[in-house]
Amino acid sequence: MTSAAEIFAAHVSRPLSAPVEANVFAPSNIALSKYWGKRDKALNLPLNSSLSISLGQWGTETRIAPADVDSLVFNAELMAKDAPAAAKVWTFVDLFCGDNRPALAIETTNSIPTAAGLASSASGFAALTAALDAAFQTDLPKATLSMLARFGSGSATRSFWHGFVRWDAGQADDGTDSYAYPIDAALPDFRIAIVAVDTGPKAQSSTDGMTHTVATSPLYAPWPARAEADCAAIEAAVWAGDFATLGQLAEDNALAMHATMMAARPAVTYLKPQSWAVLDTLWAARRDGLQAFATMDAGANVKLIFEDPSTADVQSLFPDAQIINPFEAPPAGSV
Amino acid sequence: MTSAAEIFAAHVSRPLSAPVEANVFAPSNIALSKYWGKRDKALNLPLNSSLSISLGQWGTETRIAPADVDSLVFNAELMAKDAPAAAKVWTFVDLFCGDNRPALAIETTNSIPTAAGLASSASGFAALTAALDAAFQTDLPKATLSMLARFGSGSATRSFWHGFVRWDAGQADDGTDSYAYPIDAALPDFRIAIVAVDTGPKAQSSTDGMTHTVATSPLYAPWPARAEADCAAIEAAVWAGDFATLGQLAEDNALAMHATMMAARPAVTYLKPQSWAVLDTLWAARRDGLQAFATMDAGANVKLIFEDPSTADVQSLFPDAQIINPFEAPPAGSV
Repeated sequence: MTSAAEIFAAHVSRPLSAPVEANVFAPSNIALSKYWGKRDKALNLPLNSSLSISLGQWGTETRIAPADVDSLVFNAELMAKDAPAAAKVWTFVDLFCGDNRPALAIETTNSIPTAAGLASSASGFAALTAALDAAFQTDLPKATLSMLARFGSGSATRSFWHGFVRWDAGQADDGTDSYAYPIDAALPDFRIAIVAVDTGPKAQSSTDGMTHTVATSPLYAPWPARAEADCAAIEAAVWAGDFATLGQLAEDNALAMHATMMAARPAVTYLKPQSWAVLDTLWAARRDGLQAFATMDAGANVKLIFEDPSTADVQSLFPDAQIINPFEAPPAGSV
Repeated sequence: MTSAAEIFAAHVSRPLSAPVEANVFAPSNIALSKYWGKRDKALNLPLNSSLSISLGQWGTETRIAPADVDSLVFNAELMAKDAPAAAKVWTFVDLFCGDNRPALAIETTNSIPTAAGLASSASGFAALTAALDAAFQTDLPKATLSMLARFGSGSATRSFWHGFVRWDAGQADDGTDSYAYPIDAALPDFRIAIVAVDTGPKAQSSTDGMTHTVATSPLYAPWPARAEADCAAIEAAVWAGDFATLGQLAEDNALAMHATMMAARPAVTYLKPQSWAVLDTLWAARRDGLQAFATMDAGANVKLIFEDPSTADVQSLFPDAQIINPFEAPPAGSV
């Protein structure tokens, strides 16, 4: 059994050099082919590959600087070291640096509108990993950064590039082949709309929902193989520039993931009545010819994908939706 | 390959005697452990066993009398012989009677409130089968009537008894062992509430939704085995008088069935946003201690099951719900 500490020790050359100030941005991402279920919890290894699209300028900027004492400022707020979110960050920093690390001042700012209700762990752990690499001048390949960020958050694995990114599940027991890489096919018209469904804090973390689903859902068994097949088919559609196929597969894949949860005992229902109302509106518009598709993660929001010529129609259906162009110029200092 | 006609010929002694007037009531039923997927379409044979509760005085009354010409009156309205619903009835009558049948006047009345939005095919084909048996004095055992009614509608198989009824999937290729029988355990406090969700006519028949799900849902494969296990566990809970276990299993089973559909490609979504809102209300009340559970079929309505002491709480949550006592005295002439 390889431990997380052993993986970091094998990839981050130590002793580390003295830290310098570093400032990095990483984009958030949305999976078009979902990751749902772990083959190894300690190493955070997925049962299936996944494929995402980045969220342009929506992401996390993280600044790391040498300091006399540790401090973590999140969205301009100083965080107690033992607050749950902060503890996850410091645990990760300790993993990266090993013993005897110097004190660090970490400042991290999330550019994702709070109203969008999107988790920031994907861009957050990608930016943190890249900022640590820059601060300690370890100069690791992106594939290695992606592999290491996985220990902070699975979806962070995919947040080191803009555009389409594929995270291979990998086969190795130690997970060293489980990392992401870019699918270098631009679909410049590709757009995302975030339709926020405000239902307060979610009742169950995605990790808890995933663990419970794998453990109790009678319909989970066929998921990993189907998700792997969907991921390959969606990748093929990306390369082919075939948006209609990509969109329908992404929606089918998301619904299948939520179906595995709905069959869990008891059911896991991140989707709320208002989420279903958004889907109903979308499906009615699609019957009328609109080529837009939905994807949903472990929360109540619905994300739509479509091509730029449909933007006005999407905005007229969902006036409060926030539209994202994943291929816009990335912010300065981006991964 | 055995045909439907051969099955009827083997069980209904011919030539038939001259018909006499007959009047029969059969209750509708709701599956607590669902039937979803056919192993033989021509013989309407299920892939898994199911278990239902009858709906007391909600059902179908059918009167058959000798006549000079065929006529079918449904809910006081004369039906053209080639109207889709009428054609299904006459096809079934022809199967039962074989060649050279006498003309019949059939009058059938559905006592289920239209607002309840429940299909009447279960009680309808059970009442028709029992009325044909009485009119022609064929005096068939109920198990045989149940087996034959299956050719009209799968769920009709379970509508020949009041209370809990189990339909065994059976193993025989000709389906002669696929019929229902009563589970003779009364839970006199058992109650059902129909929470109607009005969404207009459903877009897809249950047979179409079933066929599409079996053909395209990547999550269907584990369903038949799980449904069989659920059916056995629910039967055990009925015998044990363990309502809490029965209720939770019934809800889990219904959600798993809908999950198989949600994963179909494209998705089959009989549940509507308002159905999910009913479930959300129910789940919140259950967290507060209410012991009530939901089950949903191929439509948007939600059916709640609970015990009589919870009736006032259920009525206060869902003032428009219609409450049914399945163990009330059946109407005169009931199967």
